[in-house]
Amino acid sequence: MPTYNAPVNDTKFLLNSVFKLENYSHLNGFDEVSEDLVEAILEEGAKLAQEVLHPLNAVGDSQGCVLNDGQVKTPEGFIGAYNSFKEGGWIGMGCDPDYGGQGLPFTITSAMNEFVSSANMAFAMYPGLSQGAIAAIHTHGTDEQKQTYLPKMVEGEWSGTMNLTEPHCGTDLGLLKSKAVSADNGSYKISGTKIFISAGDHDLTDNVIHLVLARIEGAPEGVKGISLFIVPKFLINEDGSLGARNGVECARLEEKMGIHGNSTCEMRYEEATGYLIGEENRGLNAMFVMMNEARLGVAIQGLAQSEIAYQNAVSYALDRRQGRALTGAKEADAPADPIIVHPDIRKNLMRIKAFNEGGRALIIWGGLLSDIIHRAEDEKEKQKADDLLGLITPVLKGYLTDVGFDNTVKAQQVYGGHGYITEWGMDQFVRDSRIAMIYEGANGIQALDLVGRKLSRNGGRAIMTLFGDIDAFVKEHEGNEKLTPYLTGLKEGRKDLEAATMWFMQNAMANPDNAGAGSSDYMHMMGLTIMAYMWAQIMVAVQTDQDNGNGSASFLDNKAKTAEFFMAHMMPDTKAQLARIQQGAAAIMALEADQFVNG
Amino acid sequence: MPTYNAPVNDTKFLLNSVFKLENYSHLNGFDEVSEDLVEAILEEGAKLAQEVLHPLNAVGDSQGCVLNDGQVKTPEGFIGAYNSFKEGGWIGMGCDPDYGGQGLPFTITSAMNEFVSSANMAFAMYPGLSQGAIAAIHTHGTDEQKQTYLPKMVEGEWSGTMNLTEPHCGTDLGLLKSKAVSADNGSYKISGTKIFISAGDHDLTDNVIHLVLARIEGAPEGVKGISLFIVPKFLINEDGSLGARNGVECARLEEKMGIHGNSTCEMRYEEATGYLIGEENRGLNAMFVMMNEARLGVAIQGLAQSEIAYQNAVSYALDRRQGRALTGAKEADAPADPIIVHPDIRKNLMRIKAFNEGGRALIIWGGLLSDIIHRAEDEKEKQKADDLLGLITPVLKGYLTDVGFDNTVKAQQVYGGHGYITEWGMDQFVRDSRIAMIYEGANGIQALDLVGRKLSRNGGRAIMTLFGDIDAFVKEHEGNEKLTPYLTGLKEGRKDLEAATMWFMQNAMANPDNAGAGSSDYMHMMGLTIMAYMWAQIMVAVQTDQDNGNGSASFLDNKAKTAEFFMAHMMPDTKAQLARIQQGAAAIMALEADQFVNG
Repeated sequence: MPTYNAPVNDTKFLLNSVFKLENYSHLNGFDEVSEDLVEAILEEGAKLAQEVLHPLNAVGDSQGCVLNDGQVKTPEGFIGAYNSFKEGGWIGMGCDPDYGGQGLPFTITSAMNEFVSSANMAFAMYPGLSQGAIAAIHTHGTDEQKQTYLPKMVEGEWSGTMNLTEPHCGTDLGLLKSKAVSADNGSYKISGTKIFISAGDHDLTDNVIHLVLARIEGAPEGVKGISLFIVPKFLINEDGSLGARNGVECARLEEKMGIHGNSTCEMRYEEATGYLIGEENRGLNAMFVMMNEARLGVAIQGLAQSEIAYQNAVSYALDRRQGRALTGAKEADAPADPIIVHPDIRKNLMRIKAFNEGGRALIIWGGLLSDIIHRAEDEKEKQKADDLLGLITPVLKGYLTDVGFDNTVKAQQVYGGHGYITEWGMDQFVRDSRIAMIYEGANGIQALDLVGRKLSRNGGRAIMTLFGDIDAFVKEHEGNEKLTPYLTGLKEGRKDLEAATMWFMQNAMANPDNAGAGSSDYMHMMGLTIMAYMWAQIMVAVQTDQDNGNGSASFLDNKAKTAEFFMAHMMPDTKAQLARIQQGAAAIMALEADQFVNG
Repeated sequence: MPTYNAPVNDTKFLLNSVFKLENYSHLNGFDEVSEDLVEAILEEGAKLAQEVLHPLNAVGDSQGCVLNDGQVKTPEGFIGAYNSFKEGGWIGMGCDPDYGGQGLPFTITSAMNEFVSSANMAFAMYPGLSQGAIAAIHTHGTDEQKQTYLPKMVEGEWSGTMNLTEPHCGTDLGLLKSKAVSADNGSYKISGTKIFISAGDHDLTDNVIHLVLARIEGAPEGVKGISLFIVPKFLINEDGSLGARNGVECARLEEKMGIHGNSTCEMRYEEATGYLIGEENRGLNAMFVMMNEARLGVAIQGLAQSEIAYQNAVSYALDRRQGRALTGAKEADAPADPIIVHPDIRKNLMRIKAFNEGGRALIIWGGLLSDIIHRAEDEKEKQKADDLLGLITPVLKGYLTDVGFDNTVKAQQVYGGHGYITEWGMDQFVRDSRIAMIYEGANGIQALDLVGRKLSRNGGRAIMTLFGDIDAFVKEHEGNEKLTPYLTGLKEGRKDLEAATMWFMQNAMANPDNAGAGSSDYMHMMGLTIMAYMWAQIMVAVQTDQDNGNGSASFLDNKAKTAEFFMAHMMPDTKAQLARIQQGAAAIMALEADQFVNG
């Protein structure tokens, strides 16, 4: 059975030494967040993840959820775990204190989110979806709506969901058919079918607050006629108590590849009472608030599954003995050496390790940018953070989940035949992490969002900001010889990324397919480049700590060697990515559609 | 539900126009194999695969196998399908006519094997394992053993298995513990536990003939003390009828990620009667006969799952409508365009298509080399084929299954959320194909076999032969301008492969870890390069057919465009592979083993 140890030390190192949270005391609420407080939160969160959530991970996978008479039952132990989670105040840790939250920085909640998503991804989605719904109601709801829903949701008494997808439309929400008919009292009657609704129904909370996209009768066609509604499972009485069952029900649970512990529901709305949230026909905008945070949440899942898969692959590689080191027996007295002596095994472990530690830095960077957007006073500082976060959000989602999934496969491979056997637990990480590449916008859509929208927005201001920041960073540290190898790798990536960006500028105008064709490679190239940017920053912190005699020498040495591996072995991929991008769309679009069949 | 159409046309094109089977009439038995006969076999095989085996693929996945009182029951319908398979003479199609086989070339059986492995991989393994056991008994058995077992196995009345792995040893068979004690009558008593035994027990045949590796009492330690035994489930009476139950039983069925329709057994041997096959203590050599053919069989599984996943992804991409083409609506009257208009979708489909068609050529090439080894008279011709097949076998196994698996993931991705849902069937291809990277020697072991053994054997004769053949081919066609783009891609790959080979020669002597570190990249680089060699040969055939006005113009145009895509978009990977190889082992081996844990 797999085990899990939350990477508290690495997270603390990133928060304190690399990103230096202490420098952000000008952000609202950051002054209250001391190093000691953060450490206490991380330690407590690690304990919950390791001791309460992780032991239920395999249980959730094997039992799955069950639908009985329109009510979903979660796997054994999930209710107890949810109550611990709720009572620890974890659901509202980042929420507005006016509604019962603790107002902690998103940076900290993101770090904790990794632990929870490693320990039990299917479970983590229940509070995760609630947090998204809380954010949408907080941003777009009326005061009355906020008073009605937020305190209960922040506390965890009620949960939340997002209802976008319908059988015939996922990516292309303009095709959406669910309808809303105005009722006398200002409410609406919502009817339609929504599919793939994660945490759509369950037995963890007394009520489920659905956020539902639907089209008001007479609204324009396409995306400009979609509104967002609050549809509670149970209607709420004037005094706040629960009233009648609303006209919404889980009609079916999907059987799926993984995340069996989370209920994936087909939700049927039959004249359910709903309340408009935000402006009429501006539902997609309201939903985008949830979607951006949700994308970061999914990026974290990619990292989180890669991390737990890595930890178990390492422990197997240290334990399992087969064959001898190529350079001669390492443990001659034993019948064979542990397989970690083999370079091919070690290369795969190093790839995952370098990705995980760099990815953790990316997630914290993303969290910090989000905090700046929401907590800074200075408009320029906010705008810059908004530009950068808008640019890197699709990259974090697409790159961290694509590679995170690959890493679970690599980790499974370390186990040989045992990796394929259910009781060893490695295949669950593969099956669970697979969904992260698909939901909240399939990764191909993230790439298109990046290349088609984020690159060109405001005359390319965001990407120019990124290049400018990297250049300033390089310039600042170029004099330091010890940093040279890390800066060289970063500069190479930045150069390739710029070449690809220029190539799009020159070739996508004439034929937009040239941008579409290279979009996924570009997303991965940016992923590698900003990860190199993280590793270079990590190395600055390592140097500083080493020079000052701070921190554990082995920890710092470990970072330096991992950074070296990252630059030498992972950055060369940008060359092949650039070569493919520069081939353009011609060979990709050459076949007639029916030639794909008649080959 | 997925569908399947066997690629009969493409296979015929490869056999007739590219590899020109008619030129091989000097090989024993090839003169009887006319184009018409091959066509009839492929058509009949396609029908069986499509109509009998494929409809049971999802059934096998959902029902799995069941163990009751030491007897395994296969999923519903498997017995009937097996009987059709048996009655069609498919099990013995490549076997020695002296024992009831049809003696057809391995080239043809490999082509058919692709169809069967696409249609139902779990099912295909039952006859597949028998074919391996037949080959081992045929090569190493005494006349009496051959008479006793082969006719029944070739006919399909009895099946065969391979028993290598034990709980503590997979790759490192020197650690093997199962023991054999000599009995009075020349037989042995076999005791021990074998795990991961595919098709280890089932209800498809009256008897199961196990080939079991065990150590005779007093034999040397390590790989030089291992012998191979025939252990039938039921002992065989003098008159050939079935006698008493032998001391071997399926103790447990493994729960696993995929291939649920195949029984993966823990086999317990308790003083089971076994018969030595081949020489004492030379069991591994005897087993290698099965292992090489088994590796080609697994390579085919990688291709086969990639093919069926591709076919379904294409039909979904032609059917599903979301969004509009970047270059403007393609079907303005419909609410949205089919998603095949999107370059990112199409790029993934092209990658899989180019791999499948190139991979099919590789499999046929491998089959042909095997036929030359077994059927040619000329020693030089045989030796050359043996060199080449020895070199490319680990590449076909490792490269085709690694990329084949990736392709099933890419195909699943085309389906968006539906790809994750069981009823759409795409996740089964991912789960089933995953095992092909692991069994018959995990792909890391294939890479090590290639770099550590196959490259240097006989002073590098095999790789020099490959380079020489490619050079001669390039020289022959260099004058043909129309072929230039394809030859350029091939030459680039060949150049990178040679640079990597030279780098190993210069750096692995001083530190063998330098070879181990780059072995997987090298295996993939050779995979790409020999696939480019296939595509270049395909293009020669295409040119010839075009010049002579043969074949379908659309088919030939399709090939040309796919070849162009392969060279432009897939070959650039060799650059990044070479760059990584040339980094050597330093950064990979830098960490102490315990630093992987304490990061």
